Amino acid sequence: MIIQQERISLKHLLTVEALTDQEVMGLIRRGQEFKNGAKWTPEKEQYFATNLFFENSTRTHKSFDVAEKKLGIEVIEFDASTSSVQKGETLYDTVLTMSALGVDVAVIRHGDENYYDDLIQSKTIQCGIINGGDGSGQHPTQCLLDLMTIYEEFGRFEGLKVAIVGDITHSRVAKSNMQMLKRLGAEVFFSGPAQWYDEEFEVYGHYLPLDELVGEVDVMMMLRVQHERHDGNESFSKEEYHQQYGLTVGRAKKMKEGAIIMHPAPVNRDVELADSLVEGYQARIIQQMTNGVFVRMAILEAVLAGRA
Amino acid sequence: MIIQQERISLKHLLTVEALTDQEVMGLIRRGQEFKNGAKWTPEKEQYFATNLFFENSTRTHKSFDVAEKKLGIEVIEFDASTSSVQKGETLYDTVLTMSALGVDVAVIRHGDENYYDDLIQSKTIQCGIINGGDGSGQHPTQCLLDLMTIYEEFGRFEGLKVAIVGDITHSRVAKSNMQMLKRLGAEVFFSGPAQWYDEEFEVYGHYLPLDELVGEVDVMMMLRVQHERHDGNESFSKEEYHQQYGLTVGRAKKMKEGAIIMHPAPVNRDVELADSLVEGYQARIIQQMTNGVFVRMAILEAVLAGRA
Amino acid sequence: MIIQQERISLKHLLTVEALTDQEVMGLIRRGQEFKNGAKWTPEKEQYFATNLFFENSTRTHKSFDVAEKKLGIEVIEFDASTSSVQKGETLYDTVLTMSALGVDVAVIRHGDENYYDDLIQSKTIQCGIINGGDGSGQHPTQCLLDLMTIYEEFGRFEGLKVAIVGDITHSRVAKSNMQMLKRLGAEVFFSGPAQWYDEEFEVYGHYLPLDELVGEVDVMMMLRVQHERHDGNESFSKEEYHQQYGLTVGRAKKMKEGAIIMHPAPVNRDVELADSLVEGYQARIIQQMTNGVFVRMAILEAVLAGRA
Repeated sequence: MIIQQERISLKHLLTVEALTDQEVMGLIRRGQEFKNGAKWTPEKEQYFATNLFFENSTRTHKSFDVAEKKLGIEVIEFDASTSSVQKGETLYDTVLTMSALGVDVAVIRHGDENYYDDLIQSKTIQCGIINGGDGSGQHPTQCLLDLMTIYEEFGRFEGLKVAIVGDITHSRVAKSNMQMLKRLGAEVFFSGPAQWYDEEFEVYGHYLPLDELVGEVDVMMMLRVQHERHDGNESFSKEEYHQQYGLTVGRAKKMKEGAIIMHPAPVNRDVELADSLVEGYQARIIQQMTNGVFVRMAILEAVLAGRA
Repeated sequence: MIIQQERISLKHLLTVEALTDQEVMGLIRRGQEFKNGAKWTPEKEQYFATNLFFENSTRTHKSFDVAEKKLGIEVIEFDASTSSVQKGETLYDTVLTMSALGVDVAVIRHGDENYYDDLIQSKTIQCGIINGGDGSGQHPTQCLLDLMTIYEEFGRFEGLKVAIVGDITHSRVAKSNMQMLKRLGAEVFFSGPAQWYDEEFEVYGHYLPLDELVGEVDVMMMLRVQHERHDGNESFSKEEYHQQYGLTVGRAKKMKEGAIIMHPAPVNRDVELADSLVEGYQARIIQQMTNGVFVRMAILEAVLAGRA
Repeated sequence: MIIQQERISLKHLLTVEALTDQEVMGLIRRGQEFKNGAKWTPEKEQYFATNLFFENSTRTHKSFDVAEKKLGIEVIEFDASTSSVQKGETLYDTVLTMSALGVDVAVIRHGDENYYDDLIQSKTIQCGIINGGDGSGQHPTQCLLDLMTIYEEFGRFEGLKVAIVGDITHSRVAKSNMQMLKRLGAEVFFSGPAQWYDEEFEVYGHYLPLDELVGEVDVMMMLRVQHERHDGNESFSKEEYHQQYGLTVGRAKKMKEGAIIMHPAPVNRDVELADSLVEGYQARIIQQMTNGVFVRMAILEAVLAGRA
């Protein structure tokens, strides 16, 4: 694949699946450039971004905050609990307000799937929308940072074997990752509790017991057990989950040389992953968070270019 | 009226009624200059503002945030729910603290009418106070952005006919608007539910049924039904309100050519205003929000000049 | 003592007791330089700080915010109530995240004493830690601003007589102050309710009835009655406390010429201190808050130097 020279330009970033392979690779490489110290050359003197997070977040929210400030963009913070949302103002009218105030780009996390549909159809709302997660729907920036981390490690996707393990049905990003990884040439495998697996995933890869997978793959992508999205009727304790579906110290020893562990974090330590592995030599969890800042800089740049 | 060259200088901005006509027009024109790209030339290297919002707000709060950042002022955000207000610290001592920390100007929204009385009498508090709304009292910056929007549209106030419609008794800004509009030469009319109208308003204009007004006025200023300030004993449903006192699509068709619709927002869509009118060609609601940023830049500049 | 030329460099600032006398004096003098307009010469183009406050605060939190912005450091704000802490993320993993995002220094206030132990032992966490208060443990930056205020007033510590009065057992800063003041050559006295006094303080100074102390000392350091840390079983009313243990107008008149009143604030007016004294000529409470910004600039500079 030839290094592309042209800057990516996007109207919005809503789903990663809507991106072309060239756009995905362009954003990843631009993220790497930012990581290596590249500078943004803005066209306007001052840009404004707002981060509208209607669900709890540290990583994604603060990662965008850092990315925006690294680009020199002014950040308008928003706290739903002290906003006019408390007077019944809708998401649409909140974004319309931000647009009217001169905000160029809005990063939004909201519990409703496809919350962005009426925002992007509006002729009045002028700002670009970056999807920071929509319910159990999409989380494109997490997918892009995962892809950047794999690409940074291996320099390719073709022929890589990637296991996606755990709570797949509740994971916004697992669905994006399986699709994008397959599209980019990787081989995808699944493991974890049967109740959190769905036959629709078979299009992208195959389910195997964890102990058959662990020695074969290049990437162990462990998913967070999202207690906050479950109904509390799980049939296993944390210890049972760890022993049956988690990356124990014993399993990690069976991983191939050069194979890496990924996790979107926050990690439930000793559940998805043994505590000692989280900051161990095989883990790329810190790098994922760091890369998140840089790939989001690339995304912000692309969406601001799409506004120009 | 001659274009004034001198910059407005204010110690505080507490009520719009305390401003001279020259000051009002100076702030409006300076707002227009900022909208056209004028720059502020600060006297100090670095200024600090704080936004102390003790009531929920998106528009006013974020509008000041943007205005401050457009001027290059550092913004110290404040969240009452995680502050020492929780340990019983008073508003006075909170502002005193901000002043001691070096804050030059404090924008305050607080539920108590005239909350600012002891702040401006203090010899210790050094920062300028901009009133972002005091209970059911004043909301001078909303009044100024309304005036700027009307002036931008018509280039004058003299002889304009303005209808103020709806929940007048609970509206901070309606009271300011009726006084200022009359002072600046406009003719004011009122409409809406009788229970939200008060005879004291007769000094400024006359009450007429909505259907008699709608074809006669240049500005339909629709007020928000402030459910959060009512006791829930309204005698009409949303649909009834809309039909009796709201700007329906039918009524909007009867408006004069060139007449505009204003609303302080957030709009209760299909209550005060038909949903389709909010972003329609007659509405200036987006412009009101946009102008709010620029007139607040003018206000901040004036209050910082008053500190020098 | 010779004016030191070398900049102080600290890995973290966790307790004031761990500082050498030279470091304490260096930070105080550097704080004075910043107050007189000195500039920081950063080594990197851009620095990031985060303020992680898990307990309510106005003064300390906002003082760091101002100090960071005066130094040109980018501030990543954090609200525990909308963060992944709500999903069970630990303090360790929150700080690890901030470090991975590129944050250089984290200011932390947390209810757990010695919360920082595992943070500073981590090989993965790269950011410097400044302790903004740990439970009833330490509050080193408050101690340093108190010391700066005394030094600014008297130009020395040797031979000064300082009374620490009130709720000593619940005060993080009282314990630091008594140790540091004694180390730096001051003579320390205590007063206040017997139930809030502990024999272990005898190492640092002696307990005397308030009326014996008030005319003898150079500094009346009044402590806040921390209602939020008590169980509500105090045996006195506010009026009784004020009369028995508070600085009444009458007692203030008996203070030596040139003696000053200090209080960490927020003051319970007419409890620890008569209302009229808070902003009176003897009080240095405003100066304490102002100096807090400048000494924290010195601390931030020192901890960032320790990261280089």
